[in-house]
Amino acid sequence: MTSTSSTDLIPHIERGLADLRDLVALQSVSAQGRMLPETAAHVTRLLEAEGFTVRSYPGEVAPVLVAEAGEGSATLLIYNHYDVQPEDPLELWDSPPFELTERDGRLYGRGASDDKGELASRLAAVRAVRERHEGRLPLRVRWLIEGEEEVGSPSLERFIAEHADELRADGCWWEFGGISPEGRPVASLGLKGVMGVELRCRVAASDLHSSLGAVIDNPLYRLARAVASLRDETGRVTIPGFHDDVREPSDADRAAIARIPGDGQPVRDTYGVTRPLATGSAYHERANLMPVVNVNGWGGGYQGEGSKTVLPAHGFVKLDFRLVPDQDPARILEVLRAHLDAQGLEDIEIVELEAHQKPARADAGHPFVRACIEAAGEAHGAEPIVHPSSAASGPMHPFTYHLGVPCVALGIGNVGGRVHAPNENIVREHFEKGVAFGVALLERLARE
Amino acid sequence: MTSTSSTDLIPHIERGLADLRDLVALQSVSAQGRMLPETAAHVTRLLEAEGFTVRSYPGEVAPVLVAEAGEGSATLLIYNHYDVQPEDPLELWDSPPFELTERDGRLYGRGASDDKGELASRLAAVRAVRERHEGRLPLRVRWLIEGEEEVGSPSLERFIAEHADELRADGCWWEFGGISPEGRPVASLGLKGVMGVELRCRVAASDLHSSLGAVIDNPLYRLARAVASLRDETGRVTIPGFHDDVREPSDADRAAIARIPGDGQPVRDTYGVTRPLATGSAYHERANLMPVVNVNGWGGGYQGEGSKTVLPAHGFVKLDFRLVPDQDPARILEVLRAHLDAQGLEDIEIVELEAHQKPARADAGHPFVRACIEAAGEAHGAEPIVHPSSAASGPMHPFTYHLGVPCVALGIGNVGGRVHAPNENIVREHFEKGVAFGVALLERLARE
Repeated sequence: MTSTSSTDLIPHIERGLADLRDLVALQSVSAQGRMLPETAAHVTRLLEAEGFTVRSYPGEVAPVLVAEAGEGSATLLIYNHYDVQPEDPLELWDSPPFELTERDGRLYGRGASDDKGELASRLAAVRAVRERHEGRLPLRVRWLIEGEEEVGSPSLERFIAEHADELRADGCWWEFGGISPEGRPVASLGLKGVMGVELRCRVAASDLHSSLGAVIDNPLYRLARAVASLRDETGRVTIPGFHDDVREPSDADRAAIARIPGDGQPVRDTYGVTRPLATGSAYHERANLMPVVNVNGWGGGYQGEGSKTVLPAHGFVKLDFRLVPDQDPARILEVLRAHLDAQGLEDIEIVELEAHQKPARADAGHPFVRACIEAAGEAHGAEPIVHPSSAASGPMHPFTYHLGVPCVALGIGNVGGRVHAPNENIVREHFEKGVAFGVALLERLARE
Repeated sequence: MTSTSSTDLIPHIERGLADLRDLVALQSVSAQGRMLPETAAHVTRLLEAEGFTVRSYPGEVAPVLVAEAGEGSATLLIYNHYDVQPEDPLELWDSPPFELTERDGRLYGRGASDDKGELASRLAAVRAVRERHEGRLPLRVRWLIEGEEEVGSPSLERFIAEHADELRADGCWWEFGGISPEGRPVASLGLKGVMGVELRCRVAASDLHSSLGAVIDNPLYRLARAVASLRDETGRVTIPGFHDDVREPSDADRAAIARIPGDGQPVRDTYGVTRPLATGSAYHERANLMPVVNVNGWGGGYQGEGSKTVLPAHGFVKLDFRLVPDQDPARILEVLRAHLDAQGLEDIEIVELEAHQKPARADAGHPFVRACIEAAGEAHGAEPIVHPSSAASGPMHPFTYHLGVPCVALGIGNVGGRVHAPNENIVREHFEKGVAFGVALLERLARE
């Protein structure tokens, strides 16, 4: 067994970046059903080349892959996804979204961070560990890689329940993670839930002249009234019953949050944010613990140049709710319906969209969590920052519920990474550190 | 001098419908600057063929035409426009929008009613009167035809002020008018004002991941809050100061409104309206007298299939305010700005759109108004219905203010005419009655 040294990783890093370039070129946009089987097949070939046995199962929109390799007393489950978000608006990209492009120490492309960069860096770490151990892995690695994460992982919960024996492990290395502007690894031990809905309103069979607005109601006004009633100016959701099942954060949660440095200024600088809802100590408390509602999109009536004096027949709003333990999306749908009805908005239809995930949070004292944090500190040479929960969402609940494993998110993302937006990117050095962390984690788990 | 008889009008009606077919084929969409000079030239040729002297003046987006013909003690000003609304959404038309198409006694096409059908029927009436008077008109007819009405007539007020001597008359025959389902002519003596604005909100330089909604505000929520605050559930505008300058309706106004039959059921049936704001006696009171705000369109964020967990950087809402005497658009802009500011929505930008017209209303006792009502009763063989004001808007204020003329709207529209919407149409028989009314009006004014 050798210790982790950065120089012997160089060829693995180069190979990992070549893998990433190939993966980014595959336009695996799950929301549009693009190139999903092709990308699954490519990932399968990459894993088989490293000694993994790979099983492919049909998902709702894309194959689910389960790979296994290695032997030992420890079992690590890794979770990633090979699908990406749509690339629009295309005109805001500075280089083609599906060509990995290096500029000023960063690598740009759709999926460069979320999640192909994570996948490629972990595969590079597995290669490095195999090389150090004469071609074998000194622990059992189980790898679950799906292609439906960006559309809410519709197959995953049932898949995990039905394949629990293939997936059981000591803990799960989650599909994403970040590195702070100061170079400190950022671990998240939980994820918010998410529930996507579309509100639809129709007042007539066809569009009308807007002079009729004196005597016929307006679907976009009705939607405005609905949306304005969902939260207050501070961002707190105002739907009666919405907060009933929110788990009170523990003292440990609050202590960890109090140790998180900064207050989100790099995010605000990167995106040119002019309307923050929180700065100072409130920033991380809200990001970790606060359930919210977002308006993702709004459409209706005339959107072209100038004016058109039309009373539109219908309109729609797309929302996502970000939930915290122990809120249940099914219960939130009920209180939303009751809230709209109570305001005389019975005619507004609620359509469930594919985004639908329960919140989850791990115990910070679990040995697997501690091993992850220690390996990150070792590989990065910096004290990890621990978030009881990320602000983001993902399908963590099936892992904690069906497999009973803690999940720890540690990875290569950066605050300027523009995930889900044009010019998504990673810092090249973070990719290198990510490979080193993977090696440190696998070696540590194999030793313990 | 001969009396009005319908049989001798048949060739003029046929000729008028051929004119209408040619006019509809010209795609004179002013909002998009399409075919405006070509259409002005075509209208000029039609008028010159009937002995009119036509002068063309440059407008902001399209030529303004002033035509004059005839001699006598009476002077009639006619006002029409040759531009039309955009034809979108194209897929909802049952026949091509720019091909006049007859089905079941109706004529379909963009502009068939608003306003090319009016123009063609009046030209046919002028031809018939000339024929009866050995090729001359027994009164002076001045005809103002603009090409910017559908974008708020941006040139018209100044044009009328500067050309008052060319336009002065005993009264003005307004560009539109309707016929009730029972075949009664509908006269309007006023028009609401209109002011179009776009509200814009931006919270960041680029789109963000929606997990950041816990710590960054949402532009579509902010717009929803703004729009929801503009009116109440009943449709009453709730902006402080908005109603300050509303002229109290006279007893005569209220009496006329009380005599208007029906309560809008044909409109609701035609458009499949499911959310009326008023039925019964409130319907016509609101349509005639109530100032309102309409949401014409809304856009922002992701509007495609399924969900996208994005926090949009910006969004917009298009509104029109329908105003009544003596509300002033400039003052309404001021109270709107103050209202948004008072709610902490200082960041929402108000952009004025082209629609911007002051309200106007004529005196029901004026001799010209009485002559119009009597000629309509004679030509239609039915008692006219008199609206103190239409629910619609148009540039009537410059006529009443600069020329001092009463304006009377009488024409060929129908409640199922789908003006500004797909499948715009007129009833063929209404076109025929419109020609007869034009003849009756010109003959009556020449006699008085």
